[in-house]
Order: sequence, then structure tokens, then C-alpha cells
Amino acid sequence: MMTLSPLRINQERLRQNFQSLAQIGATTNGGVTRLALSMDDLEARAWFANTVEEAGLMVRDDEVANLSGVLLSRTPHAKTLLIGSHLDTVVNGGKYDGAVGVLCALECLRTIKEAGIALPVHLEAVNFTDEEGTWISLLGSRGIVGKLPLKQLYMKSNGAFQAALVRAGIELEGFIRAKRDPNTLLAYLELHIEQGARLEREHVPIGIVQNIVGRSNFVLTYRGKSGHSGTTEYQDRRDALQGAAQFVIGAHQHIRQRYENAIVNCGQLEVVNGAYNLIPSHVIMGFECRHTDPSVLQQLESDLLQWAEACAEAHRLTVSVQQNERMEAAVMDARIQQIVMDICDQSDLRFLPLVSYAGHDAQMLSQITPSAMIFIPCQAGISHNPQEFAKWEDVVTGANVLLQTILQIALHGLDER
Amino acid sequence: MMTLSPLRINQERLRQNFQSLAQIGATTNGGVTRLALSMDDLEARAWFANTVEEAGLMVRDDEVANLSGVLLSRTPHAKTLLIGSHLDTVVNGGKYDGAVGVLCALECLRTIKEAGIALPVHLEAVNFTDEEGTWISLLGSRGIVGKLPLKQLYMKSNGAFQAALVRAGIELEGFIRAKRDPNTLLAYLELHIEQGARLEREHVPIGIVQNIVGRSNFVLTYRGKSGHSGTTEYQDRRDALQGAAQFVIGAHQHIRQRYENAIVNCGQLEVVNGAYNLIPSHVIMGFECRHTDPSVLQQLESDLLQWAEACAEAHRLTVSVQQNERMEAAVMDARIQQIVMDICDQSDLRFLPLVSYAGHDAQMLSQITPSAMIFIPCQAGISHNPQEFAKWEDVVTGANVLLQTILQIALHGLDER
Repeated sequence: MMTLSPLRINQERLRQNFQSLAQIGATTNGGVTRLALSMDDLEARAWFANTVEEAGLMVRDDEVANLSGVLLSRTPHAKTLLIGSHLDTVVNGGKYDGAVGVLCALECLRTIKEAGIALPVHLEAVNFTDEEGTWISLLGSRGIVGKLPLKQLYMKSNGAFQAALVRAGIELEGFIRAKRDPNTLLAYLELHIEQGARLEREHVPIGIVQNIVGRSNFVLTYRGKSGHSGTTEYQDRRDALQGAAQFVIGAHQHIRQRYENAIVNCGQLEVVNGAYNLIPSHVIMGFECRHTDPSVLQQLESDLLQWAEACAEAHRLTVSVQQNERMEAAVMDARIQQIVMDICDQSDLRFLPLVSYAGHDAQMLSQITPSAMIFIPCQAGISHNPQEFAKWEDVVTGANVLLQTILQIALHGLDER
Repeated sequence: MMTLSPLRINQERLRQNFQSLAQIGATTNGGVTRLALSMDDLEARAWFANTVEEAGLMVRDDEVANLSGVLLSRTPHAKTLLIGSHLDTVVNGGKYDGAVGVLCALECLRTIKEAGIALPVHLEAVNFTDEEGTWISLLGSRGIVGKLPLKQLYMKSNGAFQAALVRAGIELEGFIRAKRDPNTLLAYLELHIEQGARLEREHVPIGIVQNIVGRSNFVLTYRGKSGHSGTTEYQDRRDALQGAAQFVIGAHQHIRQRYENAIVNCGQLEVVNGAYNLIPSHVIMGFECRHTDPSVLQQLESDLLQWAEACAEAHRLTVSVQQNERMEAAVMDARIQQIVMDICDQSDLRFLPLVSYAGHDAQMLSQITPSAMIFIPCQAGISHNPQEFAKWEDVVTGANVLLQTILQIALHGLDER
């Protein structure tokens, strides 16, 4: 049986840090906008670096602007236990998504340092760059893993992105040097709000993530033929919006009928040069699909693209397909999941195994090191929204479970289990 | 039995004028862009005024910038026979739509003047302002009829519209003075390309318009709830694009099943602030419907708005409806139709009675004076497009039928028939 440490995080200090951070990029409606590498994001980074230094920890940054506070071990050839999340947000997002993970990681390091516990591993609380994808989603964790989409990045190096890189003091040419040697890493841990309502509904404080969904997103361009709406006969119409609308409706019906736990979203659509009295000749739309099983995701993608073609044919249109981004599904490390379960059991905390239908840096990290995520409840499952909210006691509970998990892994490793 | 005049228009002069005009606002792909009150439109007006003066006719303009060439009668208290169309085009439109009607009207006046025929009525070849609706469709003919949507016009008086008015030397305050006394008008005639393929398909050179379609256009705003596409469960989604897409598909199906000769077009749609991984919360779309029977048009409108509501309910959305423009259907004068038929019969020209599914200035004029339209074939029914084309012999035939119609009405009036 596992022995838990009597150590607890300093919840007052955590709360002050949370409140300070939430003011950076605060919006008038109670939300936060800290787009990656924006002035607000840089301010948040400066604040984080100062806080790390005040705590007596070492500041570390790398070539894709990942920024960490490190508690160094004195053990020779110590590996690093990474713990983190991200400080960037979407436009008009919330105070919790990402921020909770970084601040709790830092608080755990401070608590351990203050307690004077010597560990045989380095602890690193990391803020990953651009998790939300203002430029490229999971940019920072991709950099560490060595999975940067360089072609896409160079295509993006337009004015705005270039300006952001200059602002942050990094260069595209240096990105590949951010890659870390997997042998130097012990594991990766991330605390995050659930962004779903299952924990709240079942009154459970801790979710233990088993899988992170894989996702894929596409841009479809439907092309038909323009014409005067009043004088073009129906049989002669090639209306691009009819095809696109049929795709939107059918994609949802199709997926719900044939797949369990699959997700499809048509989130963007525009009639290009539309006018009320012109038959739409050109529609651009974006959709994405998600599934936890890589082979099912592949099936989903090909089903949806076939449906896109069928909708084009039905209206005598052409459709061109561009794949924008693809993230493989990820499996969280079973040994760490077991450690967290044991910690919950011994702490009299209920927990639920969960699937994450959102993407996270842990998805990337799991490709090079054992990775795990701990979820805490968030109100009504709302996230990416100013109304995003988590009860403070749940944040504290999550932080303490994270602290125990760090100590268990750092002291006992993963292999003997 | 009617006696036709041996007079014929000067087709070489007409052709030269057609070619000169087509160069003003010519696009590189063979089309024309002469947006109402743009620099190119003003250049076309200046060219038209010069041509009118060279022809020894009187230039006339009014407070909404309608521009005419007038062949004055010496008869006291003569009424005016208006003949015209418009010189403005849509973006990237064709050389024929509107231009043919104005140039043929002018050519008829020159032919009659040169022949020294004294008529008991004034003849006025008119170019109506903004038929195509760059600012307000049928602006010029609305002004003459006294049906200006003044509230809408004042709402539009933003920078761009104000600048256009200043450029054209007119003022919103003066618009209402453009109204003409119906007692001064004898009739209105308009020659136009068909913008449909029926004449071409049946190898018939002349179409005689019986009705002009009524039309109505709306903006629908669907509102649901934004949310993370990966973490929001299906039963909790309120996806505005699902509602809008259902409207687009169903509106077409519904109309084709229940109505004959009704037209619906969904020509504009946009997901506001869309992102591939956000559930669309806000969709703005435009649609229009057309029918020749005013009571059916009303039924159509209410059916479609009911359908818009049903689509909102099905996806737990709200929908707000804004009516943008409404044009009543118009009936062309039966006596003038009969005159044109007689002219065709005696000239061994086949003709077809037609419905116009596009709007025209004749629609407005018919509210205050007997009005009629003569259509000529256009290739494949294509219009509002650089590929718009009419055979020159068909233009000439149309111009000569117009000439005979003018002479018949001017010499014999309408009432004795």
C-alpha cells in the first residue's frame, strides 16, 4: 500500500497567483483573451518568469518559447518530470483553461521546495506555447516532441506571425532545436478543467483521463455556377450552397447513426461574393471530426469525404478538399492512471475514468514519455467562454492530487509497478 | 389592319454606339462593371449626353440623375412616350443588359428625327439610375413613380452613398422632386435581353412580356450557443448552422413540391466568427422569393418564414427576420402587347408571350402609365456575367420592332383600340 505525503499546497498563494494572472488580458465580460505571442501573452509570460524567480526556482525557456520554472535535483543524471499546461487562451476565453494546470504545477514545485524534500528527479513546471492554436495548435509541445509541421509553419510566416515571433524573440529557423531527448524525461503530468459536465453531474472531484481524442480538420470548397436567381431555370442551377448545406445536415445525421462517440462539427461556412439574387457559385466551409480510436477516426474521415463528394455530385458541383490539421488519438499511461487512482482511494476522493474530447499538450508529450492528465469539474461543462468556472475547492483538490502524484513518481518511479 | 412604316433604324450607327459604350467600364474578361454613380457610370452618362446632343436631341436630367434624350413634339400639351432602360451594370456584368434598351431607344428617336416625322407626342429615351441596385434597385424609376423608400435611403446615407451622390451632383433632399405627373405620360416601352433561354431554344426573335415577377428578399439571423465542438455533448448543442442549412435545403424542396413557377434563392450565408472547433452560434443568411401572382407571392413569403421558424425550433435556436426589399408583381399593358404582336405578324416575325423573372424599371413605370417590354434572345440565357451575349441581328430586329411600336403608339394612341 502506497504511503501518502502529509504535504499540502499553499492554497492562498495559489489563489493570489490565479487572480493576478486572470487580470492579464482580462475582458470586460469577465473572460480572458491572451492569444499566443500577443502582448498580453508576453505579459503573462513575464509575470510567470518573475513568479518563478521569486520562488527561487530556475527559469528555463527554449527555442519555441516554452517557458518553465525548474526545481533542480542534485542527483547526477537526474531525469526530468514535466508538469504543465498553457497560459494562452482563445479569443474571449476563460480564466481556468490552461492557467490552472500551469499555476498548480508551479505551486507543487514551491511546496516541495519549501518542504526541503530532495528528489532524485528534476521537476519542471512548464507553460507550452500556443496550445490553443492561434498560430499552430500545440506548437510548444510539438516542438519538444520534434513533430513540428515545418512546411505549414513556413507557409504561415506572413506578417502577423513574423511579428509575433519577433515580439517573442524567437525565430522559425531555431524551432527544431526545441526538441528534447526522450531519455532525459521521466513523465509528463497535466491538470486541467474537464471542459465537459460529467464530473459535475456525478459530483466527482477527480477525472482520470484514459484517452485523448484524435482529430482531423478539413476545408471544403464547393464550386458551381453563378447565375441570375430569377432567370436561371431550376434544372440548370449548380448551386454551391445547396451542396454545402446538404453536407452540413447529412454529416451530423450520418455520424450519429453509424458511430458511437464520434464527433463532427461544421464550424465555418461562407458563400463567397454572395448576393440575395445570385445563385451561389462558391462556398468555402470548414469541418472537423474526432474519435479516440485511430482506425475509427480514419474511417470517419473517409466516410465524410465520400459524403462531401456525394453532395457535390447531387448538385453537379465540384468539391476540393484540403486537410488542415490532424492529431492522432493518444493513450494515457496506465501506470500513472493507477497511481492517481490509488491516491484518490487513499484520500477518500471519488474519481471517474474519462475520455478527453478536447486536444491537449499531453497528447503530444505521450509520443515520447509516459503522460497522464487529471481533470477537475467545471461548471456546466462550459469552456472557451467567459463563463468558464471551476469551484476553488475543486482546484485545490486537483492541485493536491497532482502534488501526491509528483511525489509518488519522483520518489518511486514508474518501472517497479 | 395596321400599316407599318417603311422606316428602319441605322444599324451601323447603333453598332458603333454599342461598341463605344461597352468600352466604358470594360473588364479584362470581356465584361463590364459600371456600378450606378461610380466614375465609370458617370463616364457612360457623359458619353450618353454627348451622343444625345450630337443627335440634335434635347438632354434632360432630373433630381435622381435619370438622364434622357428628348425629341420634342410641336403639338401643344403633348404627352411623353418614355422609352428606356439603364446604363448601369452589376459587378462583372455584361455588355447587353440595360445598354441595349437605352441605345435602341436613342437610335429610334434619331431615326424618327432624321425622317422628319412630326409626332403628336414627345419621345424620351431615358437612362434610369441604379436599376441594378448598387444602392437601391430601380432607384431612378422609383423616383419618377414617386415610390422612393426614403427611410431606407436615409439609412443608407453613409460615406459611400453620400460620396456617390456628390459625384453625381444630386442630393437626397431633392429626390422627391423627380416624381412625374402621370397625366404627362402616354406610355413606357423597354427593350431588353431575355435573361432566360426560352426564345433561343425555340428560335424565336421576339418575346412579349405579359408579367414581371414580384419579389421579396429577407435576411435571417439564426442564433444558438457557442461551445467547444469536442466537449459539448450532442444533446446540448444549439448549432446555428444546422438550422440555417436545414432552411436552405428545405426551402428549395418545399417550394418545388408545392408551387408552380415559384422561385427561391438562398444567395448569402455566413457563420459569424466561425472556427472549425467552435459550434456555430450565429449565422446570417439572405434569401429571396419570386412569383408573378401577388397573392401567391404573399403565401410563399409566409410559408418560407414559417419554415425558417420551424428550422430554428428543431435546433433550439432563435431566428430574427428582416425584410429587405419587396417589389410587387406587375402586369404589362395588354393593348401594347397586342400592338407588338400585330407588328410581329405583319413583319413575319415569330414571337412568344413571356414572363419576366427578373425585375425591370417597367415594373415601376407600370404603376403610373401603360408599360410594356420587348425581349430579344440572349445566348444560353446567361446574364449578369461577362459571357452575356446577344446576336447582333436579334438586337437590330428588336430595335426595329421597338421603332414600329413607338410609331404606332405615337401616331394612333392606345385608347381607340
